[in-house]
Amino acid sequence: MHSPVGEYLQQILSECAADDGAVADYIPELAAADPDHLAVALCTPDGTLYSAGDAERRFTIQSISKPFAYALALRDHGIDAVLEKVGVEPSGDAFNEISLEERTGRPENPMINIGAITTHTLVGPADLDEDARTARVIEGLGAFAGRELAVDEDVFASEMSEVWRNLALASLVRANGIISGSPEEAVRGYTRQCAALVDVRDLAVMGMTLARGGTNPLTGEQVVPEEVARQVLSVMTSCGMYDAAGDWLSAVGIPAKSGVAGGILGALPGQVGAGTFSPRLDRFGNSVRGVRVFERLSRDMNLHLMRIPEPSLEVIGRRERTLRGRRLVVLQGAMDFASAEMALRHFERIDPSEGDVVVDIGMVSTLNDVGRRMLHEGLARLAADGHRVIVVDPHGRLGDLGGGRVPYIARVVPDREGM
Amino acid sequence: MHSPVGEYLQQILSECAADDGAVADYIPELAAADPDHLAVALCTPDGTLYSAGDAERRFTIQSISKPFAYALALRDHGIDAVLEKVGVEPSGDAFNEISLEERTGRPENPMINIGAITTHTLVGPADLDEDARTARVIEGLGAFAGRELAVDEDVFASEMSEVWRNLALASLVRANGIISGSPEEAVRGYTRQCAALVDVRDLAVMGMTLARGGTNPLTGEQVVPEEVARQVLSVMTSCGMYDAAGDWLSAVGIPAKSGVAGGILGALPGQVGAGTFSPRLDRFGNSVRGVRVFERLSRDMNLHLMRIPEPSLEVIGRRERTLRGRRLVVLQGAMDFASAEMALRHFERIDPSEGDVVVDIGMVSTLNDVGRRMLHEGLARLAADGHRVIVVDPHGRLGDLGGGRVPYIARVVPDREGM
Amino acid sequence: MHSPVGEYLQQILSECAADDGAVADYIPELAAADPDHLAVALCTPDGTLYSAGDAERRFTIQSISKPFAYALALRDHGIDAVLEKVGVEPSGDAFNEISLEERTGRPENPMINIGAITTHTLVGPADLDEDARTARVIEGLGAFAGRELAVDEDVFASEMSEVWRNLALASLVRANGIISGSPEEAVRGYTRQCAALVDVRDLAVMGMTLARGGTNPLTGEQVVPEEVARQVLSVMTSCGMYDAAGDWLSAVGIPAKSGVAGGILGALPGQVGAGTFSPRLDRFGNSVRGVRVFERLSRDMNLHLMRIPEPSLEVIGRRERTLRGRRLVVLQGAMDFASAEMALRHFERIDPSEGDVVVDIGMVSTLNDVGRRMLHEGLARLAADGHRVIVVDPHGRLGDLGGGRVPYIARVVPDREGM
Amino acid sequence: MHSPVGEYLQQILSECAADDGAVADYIPELAAADPDHLAVALCTPDGTLYSAGDAERRFTIQSISKPFAYALALRDHGIDAVLEKVGVEPSGDAFNEISLEERTGRPENPMINIGAITTHTLVGPADLDEDARTARVIEGLGAFAGRELAVDEDVFASEMSEVWRNLALASLVRANGIISGSPEEAVRGYTRQCAALVDVRDLAVMGMTLARGGTNPLTGEQVVPEEVARQVLSVMTSCGMYDAAGDWLSAVGIPAKSGVAGGILGALPGQVGAGTFSPRLDRFGNSVRGVRVFERLSRDMNLHLMRIPEPSLEVIGRRERTLRGRRLVVLQGAMDFASAEMALRHFERIDPSEGDVVVDIGMVSTLNDVGRRMLHEGLARLAADGHRVIVVDPHGRLGDLGGGRVPYIARVVPDREGM
Repeated sequence: MHSPVGEYLQQILSECAADDGAVADYIPELAAADPDHLAVALCTPDGTLYSAGDAERRFTIQSISKPFAYALALRDHGIDAVLEKVGVEPSGDAFNEISLEERTGRPENPMINIGAITTHTLVGPADLDEDARTARVIEGLGAFAGRELAVDEDVFASEMSEVWRNLALASLVRANGIISGSPEEAVRGYTRQCAALVDVRDLAVMGMTLARGGTNPLTGEQVVPEEVARQVLSVMTSCGMYDAAGDWLSAVGIPAKSGVAGGILGALPGQVGAGTFSPRLDRFGNSVRGVRVFERLSRDMNLHLMRIPEPSLEVIGRRERTLRGRRLVVLQGAMDFASAEMALRHFERIDPSEGDVVVDIGMVSTLNDVGRRMLHEGLARLAADGHRVIVVDPHGRLGDLGGGRVPYIARVVPDREGM
Repeated sequence: MHSPVGEYLQQILSECAADDGAVADYIPELAAADPDHLAVALCTPDGTLYSAGDAERRFTIQSISKPFAYALALRDHGIDAVLEKVGVEPSGDAFNEISLEERTGRPENPMINIGAITTHTLVGPADLDEDARTARVIEGLGAFAGRELAVDEDVFASEMSEVWRNLALASLVRANGIISGSPEEAVRGYTRQCAALVDVRDLAVMGMTLARGGTNPLTGEQVVPEEVARQVLSVMTSCGMYDAAGDWLSAVGIPAKSGVAGGILGALPGQVGAGTFSPRLDRFGNSVRGVRVFERLSRDMNLHLMRIPEPSLEVIGRRERTLRGRRLVVLQGAMDFASAEMALRHFERIDPSEGDVVVDIGMVSTLNDVGRRMLHEGLARLAADGHRVIVVDPHGRLGDLGGGRVPYIARVVPDREGM
Repeated sequence: MHSPVGEYLQQILSECAADDGAVADYIPELAAADPDHLAVALCTPDGTLYSAGDAERRFTIQSISKPFAYALALRDHGIDAVLEKVGVEPSGDAFNEISLEERTGRPENPMINIGAITTHTLVGPADLDEDARTARVIEGLGAFAGRELAVDEDVFASEMSEVWRNLALASLVRANGIISGSPEEAVRGYTRQCAALVDVRDLAVMGMTLARGGTNPLTGEQVVPEEVARQVLSVMTSCGMYDAAGDWLSAVGIPAKSGVAGGILGALPGQVGAGTFSPRLDRFGNSVRGVRVFERLSRDMNLHLMRIPEPSLEVIGRRERTLRGRRLVVLQGAMDFASAEMALRHFERIDPSEGDVVVDIGMVSTLNDVGRRMLHEGLARLAADGHRVIVVDPHGRLGDLGGGRVPYIARVVPDREGM
Repeated sequence: MHSPVGEYLQQILSECAADDGAVADYIPELAAADPDHLAVALCTPDGTLYSAGDAERRFTIQSISKPFAYALALRDHGIDAVLEKVGVEPSGDAFNEISLEERTGRPENPMINIGAITTHTLVGPADLDEDARTARVIEGLGAFAGRELAVDEDVFASEMSEVWRNLALASLVRANGIISGSPEEAVRGYTRQCAALVDVRDLAVMGMTLARGGTNPLTGEQVVPEEVARQVLSVMTSCGMYDAAGDWLSAVGIPAKSGVAGGILGALPGQVGAGTFSPRLDRFGNSVRGVRVFERLSRDMNLHLMRIPEPSLEVIGRRERTLRGRRLVVLQGAMDFASAEMALRHFERIDPSEGDVVVDIGMVSTLNDVGRRMLHEGLARLAADGHRVIVVDPHGRLGDLGGGRVPYIARVVPDREGM
């Protein structure tokens, strides 16, 4: 058979064809974009890529670079140090507004230009010169995309001739002591960052790198730590779509970032990375057809931060009862707080007199840190109640956390079938 | 054994004891609150409640009523009609600011007072009189909590004596044609709504009702439709914690709402409903210890909107190979877009010459609508390739969607063990 | 002969006939105004009135009442006490904006609605009831106009039905503790104040009452002290014409106030009081033709605060030389700081040996307090130099200030001709 | 005798000695100023200078240069062309705020930095290079002061090292298309302008140059046209004292401008130019003791825009009656609109049968354009009534306006005594 996902994307594109926006025209290079270009790509957690439309067409990344430069700054200096320079509050303003916090003088968030220029200067050591910093940023963007990115020198040169507003913003943060060094250099570096060339597949991979916790699904590189990915996704959620952030969150619900060249990138934790491209923009500066495609993806695929999971199957598998005379508990599904709590509640009902307890976690699909800690705690308590506890863990998921300190037996059984 | 969850909550309370804020003092009734009161409660998707501290202590719900009155208005008039009156953009302002959209004159969101007063008037038919509307709101709050709520008449009366700012806000939306009727009545009704008495267990249940898609986990009542619950959770995310919304989202990541009496309610879709109570407030008006407890819950329990799920176990169970000479595919784990895509990709690799294919979904833990549709599509395509496709669906999860139209056989096998 | 002033006004009206604004239409009574009505009146310092056009037509005073209610409040409580409640800074906002000082919560100035409502409540003792306060305000407006004013009850009733925004403003200052008592009563009283009926001649007299230092030119009543009149004129200058105040000051230069019914009042200290009426308004809410008439008056009649006086004739009359062998100094013109300084400088050049000095102030046209004090000081110094000083003061203007304490002789000579 | 004015100034200084502000410290050169320096100077319309205190001490002019650069720009390009680039509305903001009109993108007024930087670039032809423009501005400031001004190169260099905020402002107006050319050059030129060295006597002369209508009282040079002087005085009135402009207007009432080095300049039309110097500043950036000195001058000397002139003496001299059998009218005092109107009213009462009318204007102290036109009109009407009209005009003030066209006889009598 042939996977229907690619066909589905093709269908979405054909249904989102109407295009009533206007191509950005503040520089000739953007104004010359073909308004009919349209593309979409999805990347799955294991790096599978689907795309449709003009997926090979490259365009400048523009503001979509902002969350990734922010990620690099967080990686290089830590979340707290960066928070001292750039806030995380939505500003409700347009992308090029002067949104500084009254009390601290720091930009309100890294998704508006004044915060993004500041963020650019925070990538790498403080003493990097302009060229080295810019190179580090472009290289970092490439690490997210999984390939080396080129810069469109024509777009760069053209943007630099209309760079006055950004120079004003850089001078303001320089005046406030938020950045050091030359405002002009900061703006030049930031402008070059925005001129990196990408296609929708790059955007999908970059999005998935965030959605997987910082590890590129193609290269396997841990580009940024998981806590950084989480911080970036949070800020994209509250500030990514400018003054329509609230509307985007309720209507689409995918952390996202758009660029003036017509790109939109989305990243839903654990689910999908997505990229769209269509140059015509709405009055907020977002790609008209790109927004429509994301609305469709969210609605059709239930890709929304606030999606309510279907009630889970019993976390306790139906096969439970006994195994060779011993109490058998088969856990299954994703083991997070809610499901681990259910498992513990089941353990509570096992009478101390019952003797041996076998807990099989071979069918647990995912097991996060809290699930693991809660299971260990529950198993230890069962053992403390006097049970001999045998854990069947064919994939070695439970780890050695409780190994030495708690008196239960974790059996790693390579071939569950043969048990 | 004894479940560790309650003990864990007790431990958090003891570790969040330091309390440096100040009890609200604008009316004597709030000023008289015991600043040492401290409580927390959690509610699981199936309605199990854990609590610690002064969990029986009741307090006025105050602003925590806002998302629920908003939910009732959405239920009664539909999302679009309510959006015409109240926006969903974060305002970045304090709770009692005048935040009206310049273009439309509508309040920026339902979580600030001016939006909440407007929202109150949108509960029930337009022609309801003041008493009937207020009764409907209080009754609706009770449906979320799973019990009938009383109103603290002393707090109500006292608030009414200092109601000038809210009267100003109501008069402004009346002047803008956003509400009709008397501003004074709107304020009185809203003030009564805020004086409803709750405890932390009520908050936890109310939060879980949203986190489950609108169905109360105790009573089973579908209080509001799922799309309303999603809308409310989205707005809580972007606007719930006032001018610290962005910081809350990155640091805690649980959609939440706080009240001036010291309560905080949180709701993480599919995971948990939570309530805390501690009367001392920080400068934003949020409970100091309540914020700390939520930070701990988020960090310790990995309860965060942006949590990156652990890489899933293979969606294709290891037992696959053959079953009595036939190709066997065992699906497992949660079946959403990302995992259904993996399943489809597996189907792609089955050669048309292979003959019968048995697909066992008995170990699939959850199966949402998009997962169901994608599976149906994949199974149909396998059948179109010439395979005889037999689906083992012991819990009857796949539904009859594809029943008539696609030529594959769904076998509901009540006792999977016996297969 | 016949004075040309009336004809001049008639000519201005005919030249300002084009009328491209729109009649206020927020209540039917204003919307029904005949848009072609046009009138102008001037009042001279001695109470002579000139008018042209529909000078008998009455209209509601509206916001033109604001500076006069402010004057009454200043009179009743003193400038400092009123400044604690209402500032004097231009807000740059529209008339009905919420312009409160961040630090104090007081309205920015008394010319915007929120400040004017506050000002209304400051007329008379704090314990006045609503009717008594309103009566006191209406009576005070009448004292400025020189006749008892009626209230248009239809306009009043109609405005009260659309009073929501003003109720919001009153509630806000009530919330901030700037006013006490009921916001609703404040708004009702203020709305009645705005419905007082005037014609352009009333406006001209009211303006001249301020321009003369608080004394009505018709009745001779000192309605408010001079320092109050000066304060009111200052505030009209900086805040009178709303968000076009700076433009009005440079282009017209006459302290002024406009009303939504189409009136404009102007007051140039010592020169003129003026009133115009034409119901069509520009986007700032100012009468289109009224503004044009004022521009013409300012330009044609050199009526501008910043008019640069022509270089004065010598303050020392040419007749000086000697009178019967004695040094004779004849002073003339207006005697203020600049001219008194010139006189003193002339005195400096008189050699101590010269003997008697006769100073004739009979031709001094005006003599203000500082001129009087400076002259006394100069005369005393001449006497101290050993001169016998004889002052000829046929109108008794110099006063007895120096009488006892300085050794010069002031001769009041009733008939200067016969000297 | 010795003029008391200098002693009076000395007395004011001693009474305004308390000094609770703080010297500007953003650059070392200003921080090093002696906080005890205190000086005042006054300049009269005929160029007489009085001063007291450290009147020889020079300091950098700073923001006091703003109204004068504005005057030069108005002179070079006309009021309308400059208004297209810089508004005249008070901004209510601090001196270094970003106050741009939303609709036009132009700075709100020329007294805040963003407007002043713009204004600097408008002095001289558009194609001037940086050095030539700066030289033209410094030369123009010198023309106002009546001497060539030097620039403090140390202050200039030091300010340039902290110029980021001004660079931001210049970049913003460049981005908005308000200025052309390099923002950096604009800031450098403006910073040099601010470093011009003056003393209080310079300020007094500069103020009087405006207060006399643009003609320097020392050199007699017409630096700017009268209409430019009026425009500048208007803008100083509404915007000169930053966010305390309204308070200054009511409390002091002298159009003024302050500088961060401690200077304040005042200019009251036709009356006085004034300069003060004392380096300690209040929170608005105005010299603490300078403000006090201006308050004293205003109060003691009745120097206030809104001063209400004393009721004039009869504009019709008492000597009137008959002269050799003919009706004699002797006019006196300042002849502006109000007094000319009184004269015309007197003419109205002359019966057509009376025959010859002699009008003596020899005692008229000042006669502005409107007074001249009104008198001509009145005299022409008397003649039209059949009177033979003989005008006695010993100073030749009436001009030849009516010479040919109206049938009355203007007799210029050089020696009035001999008539």
